[in-house]
Amino acid sequence: MAAQLSPQQLSDKHRPTLDQALDAIRSRAYWSPHPEHPKAYGESAPAEGLAAFQALRGTRFELDQPGTDGWTGGEVSPYGPALAVEYPHADPDVLLPAMRAGMGAWREAGPETRALVCLEILARIGARTHEFAHAVMHTSGQAFLMAFQAGGPHAQDRGLEAVAYAYAEQTRTPAAADWSKPQGKRDPLELRKSFTAAPRGISLLIGCNTFPTWNGYPGLFASLATGNPVLVKPHPRAVLPLALTVRVAREVLAEAGFDPNLVALAVERPGEGIAKTLASRPEIRIIDYTGSTAFGDWLESHARQAQVYTEKAGVNTVLVDSTDDYKGMLSNLAFSLSLYSGQMCTTPQNLLIPRDGITTDAGEKSYDEVVADLAASVSGLLGDDARANALLGALVNPEVKARLEAAASLGDIALASREIVHPEFPDAVVRTPAIVKADGARKSWEKAGEGGTEAEVPYLAECFGPVSFAVAMDSTDDALELLRRTVREKGAMTVGAYTTSPETERAIEEVCLEESAQLSLNLTGGVYVNQTAAFSDFHGSGGNPAANAALCDAAFVANRFRMVEVRRQA
Amino acid sequence: MAAQLSPQQLSDKHRPTLDQALDAIRSRAYWSPHPEHPKAYGESAPAEGLAAFQALRGTRFELDQPGTDGWTGGEVSPYGPALAVEYPHADPDVLLPAMRAGMGAWREAGPETRALVCLEILARIGARTHEFAHAVMHTSGQAFLMAFQAGGPHAQDRGLEAVAYAYAEQTRTPAAADWSKPQGKRDPLELRKSFTAAPRGISLLIGCNTFPTWNGYPGLFASLATGNPVLVKPHPRAVLPLALTVRVAREVLAEAGFDPNLVALAVERPGEGIAKTLASRPEIRIIDYTGSTAFGDWLESHARQAQVYTEKAGVNTVLVDSTDDYKGMLSNLAFSLSLYSGQMCTTPQNLLIPRDGITTDAGEKSYDEVVADLAASVSGLLGDDARANALLGALVNPEVKARLEAAASLGDIALASREIVHPEFPDAVVRTPAIVKADGARKSWEKAGEGGTEAEVPYLAECFGPVSFAVAMDSTDDALELLRRTVREKGAMTVGAYTTSPETERAIEEVCLEESAQLSLNLTGGVYVNQTAAFSDFHGSGGNPAANAALCDAAFVANRFRMVEVRRQA
Repeated sequence: MAAQLSPQQLSDKHRPTLDQALDAIRSRAYWSPHPEHPKAYGESAPAEGLAAFQALRGTRFELDQPGTDGWTGGEVSPYGPALAVEYPHADPDVLLPAMRAGMGAWREAGPETRALVCLEILARIGARTHEFAHAVMHTSGQAFLMAFQAGGPHAQDRGLEAVAYAYAEQTRTPAAADWSKPQGKRDPLELRKSFTAAPRGISLLIGCNTFPTWNGYPGLFASLATGNPVLVKPHPRAVLPLALTVRVAREVLAEAGFDPNLVALAVERPGEGIAKTLASRPEIRIIDYTGSTAFGDWLESHARQAQVYTEKAGVNTVLVDSTDDYKGMLSNLAFSLSLYSGQMCTTPQNLLIPRDGITTDAGEKSYDEVVADLAASVSGLLGDDARANALLGALVNPEVKARLEAAASLGDIALASREIVHPEFPDAVVRTPAIVKADGARKSWEKAGEGGTEAEVPYLAECFGPVSFAVAMDSTDDALELLRRTVREKGAMTVGAYTTSPETERAIEEVCLEESAQLSLNLTGGVYVNQTAAFSDFHGSGGNPAANAALCDAAFVANRFRMVEVRRQA
Repeated sequence: MAAQLSPQQLSDKHRPTLDQALDAIRSRAYWSPHPEHPKAYGESAPAEGLAAFQALRGTRFELDQPGTDGWTGGEVSPYGPALAVEYPHADPDVLLPAMRAGMGAWREAGPETRALVCLEILARIGARTHEFAHAVMHTSGQAFLMAFQAGGPHAQDRGLEAVAYAYAEQTRTPAAADWSKPQGKRDPLELRKSFTAAPRGISLLIGCNTFPTWNGYPGLFASLATGNPVLVKPHPRAVLPLALTVRVAREVLAEAGFDPNLVALAVERPGEGIAKTLASRPEIRIIDYTGSTAFGDWLESHARQAQVYTEKAGVNTVLVDSTDDYKGMLSNLAFSLSLYSGQMCTTPQNLLIPRDGITTDAGEKSYDEVVADLAASVSGLLGDDARANALLGALVNPEVKARLEAAASLGDIALASREIVHPEFPDAVVRTPAIVKADGARKSWEKAGEGGTEAEVPYLAECFGPVSFAVAMDSTDDALELLRRTVREKGAMTVGAYTTSPETERAIEEVCLEESAQLSLNLTGGVYVNQTAAFSDFHGSGGNPAANAALCDAAFVANRFRMVEVRRQA
């Protein structure tokens, strides 16, 4: 079969984008080829995207992949409606060998062709961003604009970033080299060497509920670009965005003359738990996972045949010491706590505030004033229901709701959660964030984890969802020490801090450098601690318990392939 | 204390070498700044090096490091004499915290200064290559010239290569970046970002008996150059070369104004087993290990707090199919089997030879003829005792001798091992290699590992030392399949092959690409399958069970540090 997409066509279309991405990861300046604004996709795109999404509901999602032994699926939108999409269920004994069949040709295509094919996949996904946005919205519970941006262009950025790293890494070693070693008066020793980036084997992507594309694309594209087939195992509540991704990838692979089975979907029956089964298969040599710490730890310990990249849970801290923009700080924090109802792995949980209050441009503020002003700032931000719905989205699952309801018993409530009605989706569970007061006296946490007192210190455990703790600290030293322990023992995807003191700033930086945590300082404008930009910001550090990898760096891609050398006498 | 070695001095002296190393890992052409020939070190160097080595014998090896709670050491040269050197024994509860004390300043020095300090350490080791050669010879049993080259310039090359990779990896991300995201008519969002390579923590080097410096330097220098303190735990039989290394590193660190405790030595008391204890300490975040598969597997499974890089055992294969240089093939193989009495992790063990014989430039040769001619070639190479001693060295430990003696029971002996007397060291155990005939019929290995018949197939287990198997194969397909299974199940540091058939050559390459094995084709001259050159050849692939890392590539260094970002509103 002649390929419909020739290497030349792919190169003409995508090589400039690849080059720009390679520049961006070197300069880390702002760059993105994927427009953020829904209007940038053309006048008819919104209606077409919605119609395409609606057309998927209540259907069988056909994927012509081997080993389909049944149909499964039962996604219900956090906004209420059942999606009623059925997906193929796969027999791994048939599917996995079929996925390996095309590996040789995919390896031989080389790093550039693989990168360009990946860019074509991303471009086709990008053209359907409106459709993907609805799919992400109705599986994650994100509000539409967030689902559009985070699930669309930002996710595509992260995928492209991974492709750029993968390409750079595979081409650092030349494809061939002549080696000539002088031997004094005798003839030199001469060898002709070739170097081939060889894939490890099938890569397994275990998707998450909240950001199926954003957290899924880095691993998917890093593995595919380095020559590995990718089996996509979505979260059972968030299948559709990744099923669409798999369909596009298979279509592009086939058009480019490669085996479409290089990318396949594995959806589980209710309670089947196929992630564990698949992760233990000898064919699976790479695993990317986003989710709970317990299963991430299990994968790291048990899937010894695979390279395992995990993003697990953490406890994110914002240290409040002083500020020269009190209003800016409050509104920035209010937004960070509210966005997607605190259901981001990067949302701050613990706000460490001096018991004796802080110095600000608006005068000295006591602990109680800071907490009350922050609560008022959140209430103000979310006072209008339409705006609240657009920021909060829906609670992704009943566990988050239960946790939020239990928060009332964790301490004095500085800000109670409020129920919001969604005019379009009355069944959606929409809640504003709660803020709980907590005592940060050193004696309350110093022995935590040693004497079994941890359970009594609620802010030391991850409380995923719209609950944060305003922790009253006795001193800056205590706050620094609690920050250090929290990062070291619980992990953190983000750390934020507000201070006007150069010494305190330096001390916070030192803690973050020593404990490998990504730090945002004095954010008071339109950038938030919970957002990172591909090509410039690292998402996580890979150096504390929240994640063993960062998105995206060389370490994320360099071990997905091995450089195999063949040397011959010249 | 003012540093005696200023950054400018270090840069003037070493930056050009670093740049050349960076070029070499990109081009993979031949390059080395470390002369191979003993005469290149000056007329007085041999006598001075020997005298320096002799002066160490029977002494206490003083190292002014914290936590020394006693003295230990009992190395006996494989050539006979006891070295009688005593080394400090360390209390890790004192030493480990002391090693962390200098981390902050070492991190702040940045990638370039760290690289240049490492190059100064290597340069001082290089100036003492004769002394190191005796230390390597009398711990590993290598013959002097090999100890000189492999333990000196080649080891220094591998160390420098790791420094170059570490520098390149840490400087791929800029130290700072300005980020400006357009917001339509509103002001852009602007951030000032800094990126710092942050070390993981203390790195533990667990040294091996046979190549203490060659196998030790990559991990040591990769970790040190990426900002991590390094604790060196030598093999109890090969302490001296690494103790000397630690002493030089501490001296240079202090002169450059850094804490000498960034590099320290941990020598165990007989039977103490401190590798396990140290590897389990929470302060140890990186481990480099060369040695047995059993302990390597233990480290990979149990030292979950650390990044673990292992080189374990494998079974190396040479597939003999046909040749257009029969004599060249025989002499090349004879040398490979003889060098250091087959005690290299890269020495071929299994020679797969068609039962029906092979086609050569000297006519058809039956299996028996090939085996007999190879035996004759080995005998000819080692016929002269002086030459034999210079090639073979001594057996490194009694286990190798016992294994060699047991080989007689493993099959028909095609070449018996011969005892050689060393004129200078009559107690040295010097032995020529043995070649054992074996049946490679598919039924003999097809079920191996499944039905517990593996023990009956001696060539499927690693037989470390001067024993190789001439395995009679029924077909090329069988040979390819046995090669594949051996690499996949046992691992391989090297694969060799001789063939004049393009199809067979292509099929062998395919197996090596699929199973991640480094392949040498048709070597008939002065390059041997068991030798790799730094800056050009990869040592191992990291993709089969023999090793989880390759020396040296980006994956070997990229996860020894994490990139920590601090972002501030601009």
